[in-house]
Amino acid sequence: MRVLVLGGDGYLGWPIALRFSARGAQVCILDNLARRRRQHVAMRDSLISICSAEERISAWTEIGGAPIRLVRDDLTRPGCAPQALRSFGPDVVVHLAAQASAPWAAASVEQAVATFEVNMLASLRVLWAVMEMAPHAHLVKLGTMGEYGRPGIDIAEGPIIVDHRGRRDRLPFPQRPRSLYDLSKRHDADNALFAAEAWGLRLTLLRQSAVFGAGTAETRRDPRLATRFDYDPVFGASLNRFCVQALARGRITIDGDPSAAYPIIGLDDAVRCVELAVDNPPSPGRPRICHQLTDVRPLEDVARLVADAARERGSAVTVHCRGKPGSEPQYAADASALRRLGLTPTPLPAGIASTLDTLVPHLDRVRDHVLDAQLLPAHEPDLTRVT
Amino acid sequence: MRVLVLGGDGYLGWPIALRFSARGAQVCILDNLARRRRQHVAMRDSLISICSAEERISAWTEIGGAPIRLVRDDLTRPGCAPQALRSFGPDVVVHLAAQASAPWAAASVEQAVATFEVNMLASLRVLWAVMEMAPHAHLVKLGTMGEYGRPGIDIAEGPIIVDHRGRRDRLPFPQRPRSLYDLSKRHDADNALFAAEAWGLRLTLLRQSAVFGAGTAETRRDPRLATRFDYDPVFGASLNRFCVQALARGRITIDGDPSAAYPIIGLDDAVRCVELAVDNPPSPGRPRICHQLTDVRPLEDVARLVADAARERGSAVTVHCRGKPGSEPQYAADASALRRLGLTPTPLPAGIASTLDTLVPHLDRVRDHVLDAQLLPAHEPDLTRVT
Repeated sequence: MRVLVLGGDGYLGWPIALRFSARGAQVCILDNLARRRRQHVAMRDSLISICSAEERISAWTEIGGAPIRLVRDDLTRPGCAPQALRSFGPDVVVHLAAQASAPWAAASVEQAVATFEVNMLASLRVLWAVMEMAPHAHLVKLGTMGEYGRPGIDIAEGPIIVDHRGRRDRLPFPQRPRSLYDLSKRHDADNALFAAEAWGLRLTLLRQSAVFGAGTAETRRDPRLATRFDYDPVFGASLNRFCVQALARGRITIDGDPSAAYPIIGLDDAVRCVELAVDNPPSPGRPRICHQLTDVRPLEDVARLVADAARERGSAVTVHCRGKPGSEPQYAADASALRRLGLTPTPLPAGIASTLDTLVPHLDRVRDHVLDAQLLPAHEPDLTRVT
Repeated sequence: MRVLVLGGDGYLGWPIALRFSARGAQVCILDNLARRRRQHVAMRDSLISICSAEERISAWTEIGGAPIRLVRDDLTRPGCAPQALRSFGPDVVVHLAAQASAPWAAASVEQAVATFEVNMLASLRVLWAVMEMAPHAHLVKLGTMGEYGRPGIDIAEGPIIVDHRGRRDRLPFPQRPRSLYDLSKRHDADNALFAAEAWGLRLTLLRQSAVFGAGTAETRRDPRLATRFDYDPVFGASLNRFCVQALARGRITIDGDPSAAYPIIGLDDAVRCVELAVDNPPSPGRPRICHQLTDVRPLEDVARLVADAARERGSAVTVHCRGKPGSEPQYAADASALRRLGLTPTPLPAGIASTLDTLVPHLDRVRDHVLDAQLLPAHEPDLTRVT
């Protein structure tokens, strides 16, 4: 099996590339390394030191892994996707190449436009290239649960029946993304669903919740195989930040609404979800939507779990809230598709414990200006009204 | 009142600019003239000869109209929208700047990407510039009824109540656009709704059906004031093509499903809708959605109406179908918002009669290669399934 991982140098992309290589697949990573550059320029390097893309691929073969091909290229370049697909001839394309931060997208018009260019236009080039160059390949695309917004009804994994003025139809779930980033991913997902149906592509859309954790079975086999771990407020997931705050400061700070539901999945489970999707491809022209989501709890409960786990490791930890409790509707999302395919979620406390244990040796790299960084005022107040 | 018309050199934009100028507004047109170039390069010039942008503005002042400012610029250029808004200081921004053809967008990946760049990214720059430079201006944005696709429930002008698994919420109407062009416009509309709510902008979203007709009260005041009239299959509306086919050939050809519902509005009524929207601005942060739609009939009924009207003018006309009747659900869309504001729709037969009468003096300009042009095979088969 030949697996092309777009964005394969990232937090999630690199462990996915290793997992498929470990399973015997021929793996090619395509990445423009933008995330590394962006974090480095902002002086917000990964807490866990990571090797260069080339170095960690060499380390992987050194410890017995199969060679992984690396293509440094940019999917916004017109020739990039067609060339990569033609030269590698993938059976599976795992597409994680995206600008993944909502605050980064909201900070300026140029960053907003750049986010749409990467998350949508580059992605449209990928869809077109798959249709022309690899029409039988299975495209596994990563989206976000943020595409739905926060509806007051249960979020379904696919269309729902809608009754309106005496008529009934099965229609796409009505989504209402609440940030420019989430809009960019929703637009991209709808383009992909359209392309899959219109052009007969094999598509799995994995809508992912916040991913936390500091490694997988493969990345832990050698320190040189580590994947990045961001803890700044722009690119770091809240739960990952909580872990660093607990260990380095003994004080966890919740910035937003502490009662807001926080849907999450561990890095190990997220990689497993991609495996399960790849092992169970959908039919051509019949795209499948799966939610990558193993736990939903109020943000303050998640913070308390981290505090408890850190206390068990000898740190006294307090939890503080900067925001006030809001009045969001109850959050509920179906996430049964991947369980039906075989996902057995890691219990959240175990995931948190393992994250803390992995971070401890790296705490000398915590930088105050990264941990204390505040989000710039974004043009994105909380939205609760529907117009 | 200062009215900035983005895309004010187009089929609909020019009559809108004239209407507001005639009403005493100070009008500025911003246009990159891409549509003129594109049609000219494809040797598919407007059936009705149109003057250059500069010439027709001069003609307007010559016959007593107020001066209209013209800015030739491209909204994809980062400085374009901020500069135009700062220098003109509009009270109203009518935004029609778009790549408006679904077949054009579907013909190649470069045209698809260009369509998203113009219809979405340039538009995002407009939203941002309004927020920064003219936060009190009323933004009137043109969308398309195609953003909804063809649901089997009535299309509402705004959110609907959705019941699902025992819970209920008021949510955006579930849309399912069926072409890349319609997707580009839907994405853009959702960006605008988000921006209006998050940033407190005054926004009216006019979702427009197919516009037909060959002029308005203002464009008929002098031959030099004519607006373009396209009759090729890429940019020409079906009803406009039917009119030319009937007069020039005595034979109307329906390419698609003859039973498909065809939602339409005449050019005069479409201009009136923009007037009504401008005269009744919504509150900041409370965007309003209105459907510009005065008639819905099966495509073959529309063709027959054209044939009947042409026969009354002495032409023998037959109607032929290339496509087979499909099995679309019944089409129904609420379009009461603009009627509540005062729209009195022109009856369809009257609109068709007036279009035919306007076209007759221009029939010597009909070109066979334009009228006979076929659509390239698009990557857009009909979609009826929801996944």
